Amino acid sequence: MITVVLLGAGNVATHLFKAFLASEEVEIKQWYNRNLKTIDKYKNKVNVTDNLSSLVEADIYILAVSDDAIEDLSKQLPFENRLVVHTSGSTSLYAVDMKQKRGVFYPLQTFSKAADLNFNDVPICVEALKKTDLPILKNLAKAIGSKSHKVNSDQRQALHLAAVFVNNFTNQLYRIAHEITEENGAEFNILKPLIKETANKIESLSPYMAQTGPALRNDKKTIKRHLKQLESDEHKAVYHLLTKSIKKTHGIR
Amino acid sequence: MITVVLLGAGNVATHLFKAFLASEEVEIKQWYNRNLKTIDKYKNKVNVTDNLSSLVEADIYILAVSDDAIEDLSKQLPFENRLVVHTSGSTSLYAVDMKQKRGVFYPLQTFSKAADLNFNDVPICVEALKKTDLPILKNLAKAIGSKSHKVNSDQRQALHLAAVFVNNFTNQLYRIAHEITEENGAEFNILKPLIKETANKIESLSPYMAQTGPALRNDKKTIKRHLKQLESDEHKAVYHLLTKSIKKTHGIR
Ligand SMILES: NC(=O)c1ccc[n+]([C@@H]2O[C@H](COP(=O)([O-])OP(=O)(O)OC[C@H]3O[C@@H](n4cnc5c(N)ncnc54)[C@H](OP(=O)(O)O)[C@@H]3O)[C@@H](O)[C@H]2O)c1
Ligand SMILES: NC(=O)c1ccc[n+]([C@@H]2O[C@H](COP(=O)([O-])OP(=O)(O)OC[C@H]3O[C@@H](n4cnc5c(N)ncnc54)[C@H](OP(=O)(O)O)[C@@H]3O)[C@@H](O)[C@H]2O)c1
Repeated sequence: MITVVLLGAGNVATHLFKAFLASEEVEIKQWYNRNLKTIDKYKNKVNVTDNLSSLVEADIYILAVSDDAIEDLSKQLPFENRLVVHTSGSTSLYAVDMKQKRGVFYPLQTFSKAADLNFNDVPICVEALKKTDLPILKNLAKAIGSKSHKVNSDQRQALHLAAVFVNNFTNQLYRIAHEITEENGAEFNILKPLIKETANKIESLSPYMAQTGPALRNDKKTIKRHLKQLESDEHKAVYHLLTKSIKKTHGIR
Repeated sequence: MITVVLLGAGNVATHLFKAFLASEEVEIKQWYNRNLKTIDKYKNKVNVTDNLSSLVEADIYILAVSDDAIEDLSKQLPFENRLVVHTSGSTSLYAVDMKQKRGVFYPLQTFSKAADLNFNDVPICVEALKKTDLPILKNLAKAIGSKSHKVNSDQRQALHLAAVFVNNFTNQLYRIAHEITEENGAEFNILKPLIKETANKIESLSPYMAQTGPALRNDKKTIKRHLKQLESDEHKAVYHLLTKSIKKTHGIR
């Protein structure tokens, strides 16, 4: 049994709470949030508190709070030499106060409180200053059905940055497609199977091998017509830049 | 029973051939390709030919050939007033010679000969110059398990352009993510569940509602660090432009 104290009550903390609660191998000793109201409704399931000085003992303390709050909150912890991890992709391991055993437990997924999520689909990147603290982090990931990956800080930050491309930026391309279809009275919905297939293709092909389309074929006529078709300068700029990027990747000029 | 003659033997034609063959409601009367070698191996399943003057009669002639070849090939057909459709997203309906009954049967998916594809996941955009030719195109789509959508030329061309964004450009973002992870010794594979979840989220949320991340939060510190982290000027440019695009969409400055 792994015992944890969870700190924070946002998107990540809420999903972790549910996953820990459902796991037979994890015991949530306590749930802290600076604002008790958010977690008060769980008080018959778990010991809740908004008082740092009343924190109980546990194997792992998880700071699932805003990036900017990690350093400060970790400084305020009223104990030392315990395993304290944050859940951020971009924040330094050293943001956790040096009087603790420091680590990171970064779930590489997109969380929102509303949407259900199965932790089988959440790879967890684990990092620990002391190597001997790694196994328990890996076991905690396993206990909620997640695959864990030992990474160093550079790797984690690269993954976080890459995640912005495949998640936020990809989603913005969906948005632009939505605008293009709406402007012409077409249904965005018709694109959904293609969106799924584009993501699925990556299971068996590298993005390099999966590429198709006018940029790869260097089909100047189609590219020209597409640019003419686009009404917004911003959409044109995105089309230009990503076409250039595809050509560069595939050595086309 | 719908009878068809299929012309062309590339990605689209090959998948259509298999789907037609598997359907009880479709009979492939003949398969034409200018190069007989490509289709010769199917000659015990279907009447194959490389001779336009020997084309037999059918309800629908499907020109699944390169965009540039549609007009010329349709001119050479040795009959008139039959239903002739092309499968292109961007080519004009009028590319089909005027002596025929003209239409479009555009499968909005990404096809490659190697990858299997279920036509349940292929929306088909149908268009016909004469309204009375539409039902048979819709029935043909239905016969292979596809949903059909009646579109006009503007809508079809908007969908084709939007498809470049959600397919080719999205795939290039995956490629950039691949480069970022490799440069830092991280595993691209770890991103795959996020790639899938990003595509799945669109089932229940609009791209507008699904957006998250530093650009939406206007998290200047993270944006600045990400730009510094990126090694390639081209990646920086993509980061810049899509961050700007997200901000514009959500009215952030
Ligand atoms: N969302 C994701 O998709 C995702 C994915 C992977 C990793 N992460 C990381 O996980 C962490 C939490 O993200 P999140 O999305 O769950 O954030 P969130 O939903 O915005 O929640 C932030 C939590 O931090 C608390 N907090 C903020 N400032 C605080 C302070 N000064 N002192 C104490 N508590 C404070 C908030 O308390 P109140 O409830 O009182 O406001 C809230 O409970 C971040 O490091 C983030 O980078 C997020
Ligand atoms: N690939 C996709 O993902 C996709 C998706 C939706 C729609 N489409 C559209 O479907 C059509 C076919 O695309 P595709 O990907 O199947 O193309 P493809 O794999 O490149 O195959 C093109 C076919 O056209 C034939 N062809 C080329 N020039 C010709 C000419 N002058 N006369 C007669 N035949 C000629 C080729 O014959 P040979 O075998 O002799 O070379 C080949 O069989 C295009 O209009 C395309 O826009 C494609």
